[in-house]
Amino acid sequence: MSPDRLKVAVIGAAGYGGGELLRLLLAHPGADVRQAASRRFAGEPVALVHPNLRSLRPLVFCRPEEISPCDVLFLSLPNGESMKSMDRWLKTGTKVVDLGADFRLRRAEDWKQWYESDHQCPDLLDRFVYGIPEINRAAIRSASCVAGPGCEAIASILGLRPLVRHGLVRGGAVVIDAKMGSSAAGARPSDSTHHPERAGAVRSYRPTGHRHTVEISRILEAEGANFSLYVTATAIDMVRGILVTIHVFPDAGAVTEKDVWKAYRAEYGDSPFVRIVKENRGLYRFPEPKILQGTNFCEIGFELENGGRRLVVMSALDNLVKGAAGNAVQCFNLMAGFPETTGLEFPGLHPV
Amino acid sequence: MSPDRLKVAVIGAAGYGGGELLRLLLAHPGADVRQAASRRFAGEPVALVHPNLRSLRPLVFCRPEEISPCDVLFLSLPNGESMKSMDRWLKTGTKVVDLGADFRLRRAEDWKQWYESDHQCPDLLDRFVYGIPEINRAAIRSASCVAGPGCEAIASILGLRPLVRHGLVRGGAVVIDAKMGSSAAGARPSDSTHHPERAGAVRSYRPTGHRHTVEISRILEAEGANFSLYVTATAIDMVRGILVTIHVFPDAGAVTEKDVWKAYRAEYGDSPFVRIVKENRGLYRFPEPKILQGTNFCEIGFELENGGRRLVVMSALDNLVKGAAGNAVQCFNLMAGFPETTGLEFPGLHPV
Amino acid sequence: MSPDRLKVAVIGAAGYGGGELLRLLLAHPGADVRQAASRRFAGEPVALVHPNLRSLRPLVFCRPEEISPCDVLFLSLPNGESMKSMDRWLKTGTKVVDLGADFRLRRAEDWKQWYESDHQCPDLLDRFVYGIPEINRAAIRSASCVAGPGCEAIASILGLRPLVRHGLVRGGAVVIDAKMGSSAAGARPSDSTHHPERAGAVRSYRPTGHRHTVEISRILEAEGANFSLYVTATAIDMVRGILVTIHVFPDAGAVTEKDVWKAYRAEYGDSPFVRIVKENRGLYRFPEPKILQGTNFCEIGFELENGGRRLVVMSALDNLVKGAAGNAVQCFNLMAGFPETTGLEFPGLHPV
Amino acid sequence: MSPDRLKVAVIGAAGYGGGELLRLLLAHPGADVRQAASRRFAGEPVALVHPNLRSLRPLVFCRPEEISPCDVLFLSLPNGESMKSMDRWLKTGTKVVDLGADFRLRRAEDWKQWYESDHQCPDLLDRFVYGIPEINRAAIRSASCVAGPGCEAIASILGLRPLVRHGLVRGGAVVIDAKMGSSAAGARPSDSTHHPERAGAVRSYRPTGHRHTVEISRILEAEGANFSLYVTATAIDMVRGILVTIHVFPDAGAVTEKDVWKAYRAEYGDSPFVRIVKENRGLYRFPEPKILQGTNFCEIGFELENGGRRLVVMSALDNLVKGAAGNAVQCFNLMAGFPETTGLEFPGLHPV
Repeated sequence: MSPDRLKVAVIGAAGYGGGELLRLLLAHPGADVRQAASRRFAGEPVALVHPNLRSLRPLVFCRPEEISPCDVLFLSLPNGESMKSMDRWLKTGTKVVDLGADFRLRRAEDWKQWYESDHQCPDLLDRFVYGIPEINRAAIRSASCVAGPGCEAIASILGLRPLVRHGLVRGGAVVIDAKMGSSAAGARPSDSTHHPERAGAVRSYRPTGHRHTVEISRILEAEGANFSLYVTATAIDMVRGILVTIHVFPDAGAVTEKDVWKAYRAEYGDSPFVRIVKENRGLYRFPEPKILQGTNFCEIGFELENGGRRLVVMSALDNLVKGAAGNAVQCFNLMAGFPETTGLEFPGLHPV
Repeated sequence: MSPDRLKVAVIGAAGYGGGELLRLLLAHPGADVRQAASRRFAGEPVALVHPNLRSLRPLVFCRPEEISPCDVLFLSLPNGESMKSMDRWLKTGTKVVDLGADFRLRRAEDWKQWYESDHQCPDLLDRFVYGIPEINRAAIRSASCVAGPGCEAIASILGLRPLVRHGLVRGGAVVIDAKMGSSAAGARPSDSTHHPERAGAVRSYRPTGHRHTVEISRILEAEGANFSLYVTATAIDMVRGILVTIHVFPDAGAVTEKDVWKAYRAEYGDSPFVRIVKENRGLYRFPEPKILQGTNFCEIGFELENGGRRLVVMSALDNLVKGAAGNAVQCFNLMAGFPETTGLEFPGLHPV
Repeated sequence: MSPDRLKVAVIGAAGYGGGELLRLLLAHPGADVRQAASRRFAGEPVALVHPNLRSLRPLVFCRPEEISPCDVLFLSLPNGESMKSMDRWLKTGTKVVDLGADFRLRRAEDWKQWYESDHQCPDLLDRFVYGIPEINRAAIRSASCVAGPGCEAIASILGLRPLVRHGLVRGGAVVIDAKMGSSAAGARPSDSTHHPERAGAVRSYRPTGHRHTVEISRILEAEGANFSLYVTATAIDMVRGILVTIHVFPDAGAVTEKDVWKAYRAEYGDSPFVRIVKENRGLYRFPEPKILQGTNFCEIGFELENGGRRLVVMSALDNLVKGAAGNAVQCFNLMAGFPETTGLEFPGLHPV
Repeated sequence: MSPDRLKVAVIGAAGYGGGELLRLLLAHPGADVRQAASRRFAGEPVALVHPNLRSLRPLVFCRPEEISPCDVLFLSLPNGESMKSMDRWLKTGTKVVDLGADFRLRRAEDWKQWYESDHQCPDLLDRFVYGIPEINRAAIRSASCVAGPGCEAIASILGLRPLVRHGLVRGGAVVIDAKMGSSAAGARPSDSTHHPERAGAVRSYRPTGHRHTVEISRILEAEGANFSLYVTATAIDMVRGILVTIHVFPDAGAVTEKDVWKAYRAEYGDSPFVRIVKENRGLYRFPEPKILQGTNFCEIGFELENGGRRLVVMSALDNLVKGAAGNAVQCFNLMAGFPETTGLEFPGLHPV
């Protein structure tokens, strides 16, 4: 065992986010995966649930209670679950990365309003850093607790925040029209994910009131945004991936392509996982989740219309990687002092 | 209400087979759909479960116990369910069409061996006619009880029986390699039909021991077949449809294309729903379930190899129509004296 | 031949719109399909290209020049093609229904701006009625020339026009975010429709500047709309179908659900093919193109947010039926004095 | 540049196999990709065609004629192309790995019979080693020329050869029923790969006479097989992946599970990329191409029936990786003295 490897464990390891954490961490040169917990599958081999892990180091699910102290503890649980025992997890892991929603918001009243329940440990909210490396790199480096954002939030924030910071859009209305794959609904079957019903669907499952709205709003407000943010989410026939099409009406009229390029370049010049994609030829002229499957990239593109008075931003990523587990490993790299891209080098497949 | 219309009812109407029965019967000029029963959805509008029926006559699910006497009672229940109360259903419907497996086999011992339970009313087995119009037209016309076959069985029997009857294959081994859509698993969600797992799958869910083997075997044995029949079923990414690829080794060496054409033409010359598809040009040279969605057609094609010593037969249909509800309506047409194609005229879509 | 049946012919019959016209017209009790023309496939059986038509009346493609005079001539050609010979076609068909874009716009300068070429017969533009029965029923009844709209235009206009007419939205910005199936691209293969590239794609192929914008704008302006209309089109993994998600910001603040219901009911009370879909239970709570495949329905739904200051309208249809051929047959029914729904009764499939 | 890295080049680099070669070799610690040739795309950036390579080292396609001498030259060309200039390529590359069909067969008459043309350099056939490391490891290690097999051939040979070598099947008939993804047809669009036609298809595109039959036969005959081998290929709705379902009738009656396990273990005990998958629980009980996307694994499973008188073998792989480019890199590793798994460690995704 290399002395440089950190002891890590994953709770909620049988879910899709948990499975991706295992895939990435088991191959990560700086991580020593000690335990993987799942209440439902305790005692079963990890490969029963995640057959892609068959050829990696064998691992058996333990129960969450059996998790031993470790350097970094990853939690990938349904909303409302991690807060129930966060006191305990903070003692188990020297550092904690929580992929769920529980610690993404600063204010307990935001939780109450959007998740319709009282937050169970509001005093801990301040200890968590919002885990998007591209906007919070320094804070994550020194953080002991990181809250991994929602996948729509990551895609949307990465697409919008540079525009806000560079004064291209601050007021008015912004509409995020999100196209979602089925894995975003998690690993538990339900009527709505039954294949004959879900295949081929173009289902407006959340036309208004999407919970990630508040995450996105808070981050952008911190940069001066004062717009009305609306999120509409449509489930399409795709397993992995999300494309957010963001409809923006720049302030004070016209914006130029150069303005937009400048904003993105300034913000992401040193971000290895953000790619600005705006080609005038080929089939992949704009961000495309299809080719991002398995990768940690977020692709961002845009197009202007009506003399710059309307701007369409497209942002794509793999909801289980850059939208969840990969982004968490990227945070882990920063927290541990590894190069930011360690273990996240997979370039993606074409065709797929 | 036309005096010619028969009163019909459907039990198990919330399932996929039941939904197709409703779609077909509600538009059928000779059927007056009086009731649709579902234990799970009793009291709910039919369109809640089958949204395609929104614009047809409104109907509310009743409980099975509430079904009133009718001319023809259709049952579309999970295996083992209809036999529990068949005594009762035979009193409810003047005629009964059961789409489940319970009354497909003549011999109770076959049921026991393949379905691993005792048949609960073996004395009723003889009252049911095996409901494939193309092979049993006369018997169905005069039947009061019809058992609708399994979808693989219909596709396979229609492909193989002419070959057996015309002496092209009687002994040796026959392999049926079936490619199945997800709707064949029914309307209840499970781990295996969860979209992220089922989408893109090529799942060998039944490499050996498929239950429809016995149905097919019994029918073919009655025509003199003496071969070992093997069925392998693979689930593919499709909702509706089945293609069986049947690998046949003709007896006594060489068979010619002419022999095979002759056998099919002789058997299906008067069968409006069987199409022999064997083109030498175009994209749809052989049977293709894709374009049969919603139709009552069974397409059959073939190709010879090795000087006629090997024969591949392909047979395709929509598992919910010709493989279940449409076939049952075709039986109903015969039982009621309507033209065989009544209410089953939909030609299918292209592209789709 | 019934004396009531009208002689019809289809030019461009090998395309997807043309194939759907044949499917619908061959089964139409009031249509006698005399000829089907295709330059590329002249001399070939129609079923070579449209295998779903195998069991309908056999037909062989002729060349466009061979089309004889008929009662109603349908044209389904690529943009810019029908105008080349419209003088001739007006002599061939007593009435003409053109499914292409050439005669959808009233003003030649609109054509020039959006299609980047001079219109070749601007003097004929006035003879064509814009063919959406739900908004133009009387005019279509007495028309001799009908221009079938684009599929995004039909879906969008049916969703938006009642809101404009009832004063719910007139100014500001409206964003149409369209999710499109691959059949909208037509029957000709290209790099972008190659299955390995197109399958699984979420392709922003037209983020801005969609040509249907002008069609939609002109229709809505005629009702008093004065908003900026923006269309963004994304290709998703679907063959048939379109969902437009329309993001609307009602004028003068708050709108209520009742206002919106009232507008739709007033406009579509007598329209058999428009369904308002807004359920609070079930999987199909909003419009869903999946279950509309093969049908002539347009489903419209909506949801309000932010105290009625934002409205999401969803509108779904089958781009080849209500978005093209079915809508054209609906116009034909009106032009010929048949009941509006004749030949368009297919209710759709579930699951599919 | 590390002195240990070999200079490599790829001809046919714009195709799907070529793209995968670039993906794997650009990330390979022992390969220095010097050039990538494509006649069609010469002068264009590689990422125009393979957008997944955007974040790897930029590369511009050159013309095949511009390829400079290198240590290992990879060719990934349509059938019949590499033989046209193999004399030249043998001078360009110190070693050559050809992924096409041209040099897979030992006998020119086999080529003539199955590819219906004269082989243009029959004298070179003997210089090529058939490139399946699992069966030819030693020969590949010392080879200067390797012919990469067809994807069905690799899957089928890996499934069948142990059975032949261990005397479980030698005579009789063996049927390979292959389910194929669309990427196997290559990167060029055609009518048959047009998305509206290809999506949802279950197309029996090669019921008999598949060319890979001869490859498989020759390899198995060398181990004593004397059976009639039949291949039926069906295209299903999948981009990457192949599952071959092999229907085997063991000689001399009964075979036991233990016999089969023993044969596979003996042959693949030291093969890192072959996994025997035969679970009695979980969703992934047998080989599944879905979870092998992007990986170099071949999964093999089996099930016995009828007292061991019938055996179904399932073999799955990613046709572009273990079925082409990954397998070629595995050969390259052996030829270069690298560990066999170098650059091929990707474990695959779940769900996907």
